[in-house]
Amino acid sequence: MLPIHTSINYSKCGEHMYALAERLYPICRSITGNGVRETLRLINDEIPLTIVETPTGTAVFDWVVPYEWNIRDAYIKNSNGVKIVDFQKSNLHILNYSIPIKARMRLDALRPHLFSLPEFPDWIPHRTSYFNDNWGFCITHQQLENLPDDDYDIVIDSTLEPGALTYGEFIIPGMSEEQILLFAHCCHPSLANDNLSGIAMVVELAKIISSSSPRYTYRCVFAPAAIGCITWISNNQSELAKVKLGMVAALLGHPGKLTYKKTVTGSTLIDRASLHVLRHRNEPFDTLEFSPFGYDERQFASPGINLPVGRLTRTPNGAYPEYHTSADNMNLIQPNAMADSLSVYHAIFQLIENNHVYQSNFPFCEPQLGKRGLYRTTGGHGNPEQQQIARLWILNQANGQRDLLEIAERSGLKFEIIADAAAELTAADVIRIV
Amino acid sequence: MLPIHTSINYSKCGEHMYALAERLYPICRSITGNGVRETLRLINDEIPLTIVETPTGTAVFDWVVPYEWNIRDAYIKNSNGVKIVDFQKSNLHILNYSIPIKARMRLDALRPHLFSLPEFPDWIPHRTSYFNDNWGFCITHQQLENLPDDDYDIVIDSTLEPGALTYGEFIIPGMSEEQILLFAHCCHPSLANDNLSGIAMVVELAKIISSSSPRYTYRCVFAPAAIGCITWISNNQSELAKVKLGMVAALLGHPGKLTYKKTVTGSTLIDRASLHVLRHRNEPFDTLEFSPFGYDERQFASPGINLPVGRLTRTPNGAYPEYHTSADNMNLIQPNAMADSLSVYHAIFQLIENNHVYQSNFPFCEPQLGKRGLYRTTGGHGNPEQQQIARLWILNQANGQRDLLEIAERSGLKFEIIADAAAELTAADVIRIV
Amino acid sequence: MLPIHTSINYSKCGEHMYALAERLYPICRSITGNGVRETLRLINDEIPLTIVETPTGTAVFDWVVPYEWNIRDAYIKNSNGVKIVDFQKSNLHILNYSIPIKARMRLDALRPHLFSLPEFPDWIPHRTSYFNDNWGFCITHQQLENLPDDDYDIVIDSTLEPGALTYGEFIIPGMSEEQILLFAHCCHPSLANDNLSGIAMVVELAKIISSSSPRYTYRCVFAPAAIGCITWISNNQSELAKVKLGMVAALLGHPGKLTYKKTVTGSTLIDRASLHVLRHRNEPFDTLEFSPFGYDERQFASPGINLPVGRLTRTPNGAYPEYHTSADNMNLIQPNAMADSLSVYHAIFQLIENNHVYQSNFPFCEPQLGKRGLYRTTGGHGNPEQQQIARLWILNQANGQRDLLEIAERSGLKFEIIADAAAELTAADVIRIV
Repeated sequence: MLPIHTSINYSKCGEHMYALAERLYPICRSITGNGVRETLRLINDEIPLTIVETPTGTAVFDWVVPYEWNIRDAYIKNSNGVKIVDFQKSNLHILNYSIPIKARMRLDALRPHLFSLPEFPDWIPHRTSYFNDNWGFCITHQQLENLPDDDYDIVIDSTLEPGALTYGEFIIPGMSEEQILLFAHCCHPSLANDNLSGIAMVVELAKIISSSSPRYTYRCVFAPAAIGCITWISNNQSELAKVKLGMVAALLGHPGKLTYKKTVTGSTLIDRASLHVLRHRNEPFDTLEFSPFGYDERQFASPGINLPVGRLTRTPNGAYPEYHTSADNMNLIQPNAMADSLSVYHAIFQLIENNHVYQSNFPFCEPQLGKRGLYRTTGGHGNPEQQQIARLWILNQANGQRDLLEIAERSGLKFEIIADAAAELTAADVIRIV
Repeated sequence: MLPIHTSINYSKCGEHMYALAERLYPICRSITGNGVRETLRLINDEIPLTIVETPTGTAVFDWVVPYEWNIRDAYIKNSNGVKIVDFQKSNLHILNYSIPIKARMRLDALRPHLFSLPEFPDWIPHRTSYFNDNWGFCITHQQLENLPDDDYDIVIDSTLEPGALTYGEFIIPGMSEEQILLFAHCCHPSLANDNLSGIAMVVELAKIISSSSPRYTYRCVFAPAAIGCITWISNNQSELAKVKLGMVAALLGHPGKLTYKKTVTGSTLIDRASLHVLRHRNEPFDTLEFSPFGYDERQFASPGINLPVGRLTRTPNGAYPEYHTSADNMNLIQPNAMADSLSVYHAIFQLIENNHVYQSNFPFCEPQLGKRGLYRTTGGHGNPEQQQIARLWILNQANGQRDLLEIAERSGLKFEIIADAAAELTAADVIRIV
Repeated sequence: MLPIHTSINYSKCGEHMYALAERLYPICRSITGNGVRETLRLINDEIPLTIVETPTGTAVFDWVVPYEWNIRDAYIKNSNGVKIVDFQKSNLHILNYSIPIKARMRLDALRPHLFSLPEFPDWIPHRTSYFNDNWGFCITHQQLENLPDDDYDIVIDSTLEPGALTYGEFIIPGMSEEQILLFAHCCHPSLANDNLSGIAMVVELAKIISSSSPRYTYRCVFAPAAIGCITWISNNQSELAKVKLGMVAALLGHPGKLTYKKTVTGSTLIDRASLHVLRHRNEPFDTLEFSPFGYDERQFASPGINLPVGRLTRTPNGAYPEYHTSADNMNLIQPNAMADSLSVYHAIFQLIENNHVYQSNFPFCEPQLGKRGLYRTTGGHGNPEQQQIARLWILNQANGQRDLLEIAERSGLKFEIIADAAAELTAADVIRIV
């Protein structure tokens, strides 16, 4: 069981996470290909991964694993032979999953294949064309506006060939076969917050959890978004019944407020635990109702899968201007924001691991706490202390059906205080875990 | 099924409705008698009615159909032989259901039989004395105040004799035997808003519905209030199990805000549909909780009948000063208010007819919309469009149990958008109607 | 059944209650001993009590009835032989349940046994040491601050010996075996509001109830708090299934607002009835959510007992500065506050006794009230009167499942009006009690 009290140096963890993100940043990732494999190799240096390759052509529910995409180089040269757009300088320059092309064309033919961001003329946008054969380049709007009419040499040295979709997984065995899922998508190219921050946080959390003896079995999954998540679900159908709950980890390095997005039901344990932790830390945070768009929580929420998977980000996708642009770089994310994210994730799972259901051994009237050293001795004072209040709430509510979190919520006390009191009362043989 | 999109010219309908109300206005109606018959005859010129006559003396639950009341003339003459109150000038002058009388009397004897409205001294009140033998005249308060002590000749040339209670009904057969009830009371004399407006709206709505192939069977009932409604219920006991829901149509020509009065349960389909339509049209409206007084919704809400029948009026009964007075005349009601009422009634039943329950054919993760042409092709943009959002909500929620309205409410989208998306997805064989 | 209308002179009752509290004030009570016996003897002069003695050593759930405590005298003399603290002047001077002691000691040895209230330097605090052998004196903080270093003679002439725990009970038989519990703790020494006010109110209420023929059986229990309540519950285990609901009566003489503390469920009949009465009397009041501390409601709320017992006080324990000090004396409580408390308690039980479930004899449409003289005869007016509204609500809601209080709450009408209308309708054979 994850201990309720620990002395993790989150600040130091923040530096580790930032350093891992920095190592992962240059890689050109996509939903398939060697970028994902290289990413998983670097993660494997931190925590031991099982790598799963699902071949092109495999049916995964309504989808089929596509051709694998790899890219060596890409550029646009003007008629003077000058490379004016160069994949080597930024992998965002390429429309992700572009088919190969080698051609010379005038600007008007090239123009429909150029993508830019008029509202942020200095940034390169991130654009993709999965499941739809196309090619293109993403450039700053300033460059686009100033492109002269000219003959351009277009080269995209990519391959789309039978291969596989790759994901990695680290399983931390727990005392119970019930599983908790931590899912981080790993398909975005050089974007720091989305989602090197989420990957690094899951890696660091996995180290913490695996260093204790967790109650639940944790599955830390690093997979491409959408098709990668669908593939993972398809490959694990026989295991899904064991999944108790989960969390999609993404966008955890930006210094904005934490934002919890509820599961489709909205009142499951992961919702209750996350919101309890967020409410009791005296930092502003946001709550989003479930919606069937965003990240991979939508796959877990589909009617046939129906797993309670929440999502905890900082500023959510689409809500900060740098989202899906070249400005989502290593300057956007901060070690202390990553440390803060980790501390909250950790607290949520500490809560869930300690959230037992208790039954009072003395359900008829209050037991005599005094003779067990659990009651102040001189009576008649004003209000009893918080610890005393926690004991009385547990004794009143411990009917073998309510979990500790419900008792914490009803009492208005922080979970740790209730958990400490439950531990004391258990040690004194006054209550027992059901 | 009523199509979700139509191109009705409601404004033109408003003129038709106003014209019908104008033709009905002069008739002296009551809960029985030839006034009702004449009213139904004029309605029959618009839509084919079945006329039901229930004889005097028939037991209808705790009630008995009373003697039929008819009136030819009534007046008060002063000692100079001058008619100072004349039924021929306004049928409101008579206490409705007055027994016949022919007598000469002093003012002090006449006084208890005179009814006026002190707070509106120029208006004649509408008063009735059903189920209680009495006679009387309704006059302006100004006239009452200035009546000299005199000998008055009183004549009420009415009859109370065995006859029948009359109501009319237009049934529009639907694909299903399940029935939707539209109830308009038709017992008030020359009062325009109450309820010629309701009658005319039901007539016009019936024309629209019968010109398509509705999913449900509609029963448009024109009956006297209270005893007429009770008689209809009594005559239709074996049919009540088929009634899915209903609406009491009344007070629909006054230019005030629309006001929906909830069913006794408050959360049935007619409540949800009415409130959805009202909330999404960007016009102010009011909601009333159920109460067991008002119009005939109270009969349908009695514990043994218990049918979900809402009531949609504009300014409700008792909430505008002209209510039940001579000022509720053809100047009080307006064609455009009637048109607006019709458009909302129509939208409510369009919603109900299109409110299917869907089951996803691809419940495990999201289906691949792109290969069906239902997904934008270049990914990575900001928020998906409303139509895209609607599709994803339906796919997420279509578990074979929720109706479309529930999905519309949860998504925050207007029903039409959800219904259009459901039609698209059904055409693409991605979901199916349960 | 307690009649819904009575003409009690509550003001006169207030004087009786104050006079009883005055007689009880001087007695030195504790959780056992002759103070409780003397208190019950004086109550017995008002209402006939059954006295129950439970011997020292008896196991009551997790507790054991302790040695009986009695005290004859106690004082502190200074080295001049002057009594500077004297039990005969105020029984609050003694740490309640002090073990006997006779010793001479310096101030530094005495000091840990002296209790005072720094924030109210003129008041003597009330302190206890049950279940923990100790001795001590309670004095004003002013006196404590000025105590010279000296040799003090300490005498506590108390006994702690095998004996019994004493409580008293008055049972008022009702038509039903179902029981309503009124619990007043009687263990505090000279504290007027806590709880001579509660004792006196229960005595007076018992007189009122026993003078009619109540529907329910009432058990008025005067017992020490905590261990006394636990002993009562333990002694009555086989009876608990008959207890329908109850109320802890305490702190009812202070002129503050009435405060209702909810049961652990929060929506049982005693909660609904109490809050209905409080809301409809146009006086400010407070509501407290349940918490497992306070008075003996906590014992009844323990998971194995689980009886719906509310608590109605005025300003609650700990919320007025005089609480548990010598300032809680006969000047703090007022006859008119006690009268007001009594009137509300009485109204709550009048409501509960009249709170039947009705079934309409005419569930199909509205019955014809006019022929039974229960409907105004000239129709067409504006809003029907309150009594008429009450009748219609009952007829609409009387489905054999809802109680009258639910109908009162839904209609927004005061319970008395609904109860009167129900009586009328029952007399007219329109509804019947289920």
